[in-house]
Amino acid sequence: MSDLPERVEIAEEGPREGFQIEKNPIASADKIALIDALSATGLRHIQVASFVSPKLVPGWADAEAVVGGFTPKPGIHYTGLWFNATGLDRALAFKDRLHLFGSISLAASEAFSLKNLNRDRAGQIEAMRKQTAAHIAAGVPVTRIGLQAAFGCNYAGNVTPAQVMAAVADGLAIAAEAGVTIRDLTLADTMGWANPRQIEAVIGEVRSRWPELRLALHLHDTRGLGIANAMAGLRMGVTRFDAAVGGLGGCPFAGQPGAPGNIATEELALLCAELGIETGIDLEALVEAGRLAERILDRRLPSAVLRGGTLARFRAQAA
Amino acid sequence: MSDLPERVEIAEEGPREGFQIEKNPIASADKIALIDALSATGLRHIQVASFVSPKLVPGWADAEAVVGGFTPKPGIHYTGLWFNATGLDRALAFKDRLHLFGSISLAASEAFSLKNLNRDRAGQIEAMRKQTAAHIAAGVPVTRIGLQAAFGCNYAGNVTPAQVMAAVADGLAIAAEAGVTIRDLTLADTMGWANPRQIEAVIGEVRSRWPELRLALHLHDTRGLGIANAMAGLRMGVTRFDAAVGGLGGCPFAGQPGAPGNIATEELALLCAELGIETGIDLEALVEAGRLAERILDRRLPSAVLRGGTLARFRAQAA
Repeated sequence: MSDLPERVEIAEEGPREGFQIEKNPIASADKIALIDALSATGLRHIQVASFVSPKLVPGWADAEAVVGGFTPKPGIHYTGLWFNATGLDRALAFKDRLHLFGSISLAASEAFSLKNLNRDRAGQIEAMRKQTAAHIAAGVPVTRIGLQAAFGCNYAGNVTPAQVMAAVADGLAIAAEAGVTIRDLTLADTMGWANPRQIEAVIGEVRSRWPELRLALHLHDTRGLGIANAMAGLRMGVTRFDAAVGGLGGCPFAGQPGAPGNIATEELALLCAELGIETGIDLEALVEAGRLAERILDRRLPSAVLRGGTLARFRAQAA
Repeated sequence: MSDLPERVEIAEEGPREGFQIEKNPIASADKIALIDALSATGLRHIQVASFVSPKLVPGWADAEAVVGGFTPKPGIHYTGLWFNATGLDRALAFKDRLHLFGSISLAASEAFSLKNLNRDRAGQIEAMRKQTAAHIAAGVPVTRIGLQAAFGCNYAGNVTPAQVMAAVADGLAIAAEAGVTIRDLTLADTMGWANPRQIEAVIGEVRSRWPELRLALHLHDTRGLGIANAMAGLRMGVTRFDAAVGGLGGCPFAGQPGAPGNIATEELALLCAELGIETGIDLEALVEAGRLAERILDRRLPSAVLRGGTLARFRAQAA
C-alpha cells in the first residue's frame, strides 16, 4: 500500500446535492450558512448551487439568492451546476463569484440518460455538442467529462467497462470536434452499484487507454460500500473525489427515494487522515458543518462520523 | 485481487449485540422472532443471547426465555456470551440448544479492560485462567482468543501492533498452561478505530508470528470505515467475520452512546456477493430480517442496504 497518494483533493457537493432532494423548502439563509461554514473547513472546492430548471428541481429555485449571498473566501473554488443554455446564463451572471468551467456530461447507461434527461445516447451527444459550443461562445473553458452511471444502473442493471470506454470515447470525440482539450474525467457511481474490485478494473482500463486524463471519483453510499470504493480509488492512486458533508444528497432521478446519498465528506476525510493522506481539511470544523446541516434539515444524516466523532478528540483525551 | 477468499463465514451477532444497549425493554417474543427470521437467511452462526449479569446488562435479563424459545434450525450454530462462572452455568443449562465453546477474552488496551471489566492486565489474565479452568471442568472446549480494542481505544488512544502481539501471547500462555489448543483468534475493533492499512499491518504481523491461528475480524462502523476495513480483511484472506443485522449494536462500555454499532451483516454480505465470494446467505431474506429489527426497535438502523436495497432486485427488473 505504498502507492497511496500523498495528497487528495475533496470537492464538496453537499449544498448542491443535498438541497435538491429535500421535500420541504430550505431557507436561502440556511443554505448560505452551510456554505459559509464549509468555507471555514479547509475545503478548496465547494459546489454551492444548481442552476437547473425550478420546475424540475424546485429546491434550487433560489440559486441566485444563495450564490449572491454567501461570503466567498479567497483560495476556494465555488462551483455551480447547469444542464442547458438557460442554466449557463444564470451561472454567468455570477462569474465573479463562481469558478466556471464546462463539463461534457454523459451516461454510461443509455437507460439512465433516458430517465434522467429524456435523451438517448445520440440525443445526449447532440445536446453536449451544443452545450460545448455554448460554453466556448461564452468563454467558459470545457475541461472535464463527467460520466454518470459508470458502475451500474437501476434501470439497465450492470454497466460493463466496455460501455464506460465507449462513453468516454464519445465525450472525447465531442471535445475534439469542438477543439477543446479534456483534462479531467469524473467517473460517477450515480446509483451506488460499484464494488472495490470493479473500481480498480474500470480505473485500470481507463488509465491504460487514456493515461493523460486526470481521474476523479463521485461515489454514492447507497449500499454501504462507498468508503470501501473510495479506498479502492486511493489504492489506484486517484487523488480527486467528490463528497457531501453529512452524506447529504441522493439522485432525484435514480428511482430510490430515501436511499443514502453521496459518501460523507467527513468519512472520506477521516479515512485520508488515518492513512496519512493530506486533504487540508479541519475535521472538527467539518463535523460541525455536518451538524449544522442536520439542524437545517432537522433530521439525522447518514454520516457515521457525526455520531462517532473524530479520533483526534479521543487521542487528545487519552494523551 | 486474485487472493480474495472463495468463501466467507459471517457470524451474526445482532440479537446479542443489538438488544444489550437498548434503553427500553424488548419483548422476549420479539427477540425470538428476530432469531427465527435470521435462521431462515442461510446464516450458520447466530449469537442469540448474553448471559451477563442482569444488573450490568438489563436488556438480557430474559436470556433463558429467549434461548428456550427460539426454534433451532439444523446446521446452525447458535451461540451465547458469558463472562463468569454464573454466566457459564446459565449457558450450560441450554447445552442441547447452544453450541458452547470457551473464549479467552483479553483487551489489547488495559484502559479498556479497566473501564469494561474493572480489571487491569494482570487481573484479566488471572480471571481468564480461572474461567478457562471452569470451562475445562464443565467439558466446554476452549478454542478461541477474543481480543478487544485491537486497533485503538477511546480511553487509551492508539493501540500498537506490539500491544496486540503481547495480548495474543498472554492468551496463548493461558491456554498452554491449561493444556488447551487455540484454533481461532478474533481481532475486535471494539470502538471503531481501525483503518484499512492498519488492518493489513496487524493481520500481517499476527500471521507471520502465529500462522497456525485462524483469524476472524469483529468490526464496528463507528466512523464509517467498517466495510472498507472488512474489504482490507478480505484482501488479506480473512474468511471469518462477525457482523450484526441492520448494523445493530455498539459497545455499552465504549463511552459513545448513539455511535453506530457493528458492521451491518447485509452490507458485508452484499460486498461479498458483488465480489463473487460465497457466504451462503440469501440477501433478500437478510434485508427482511433487518427490517424486522427496525420494526422491533421502532427506529431506523444504520445499514445502508436497508434503505438502498440489494442490487439483485434491480438486476432482475432490468433483465
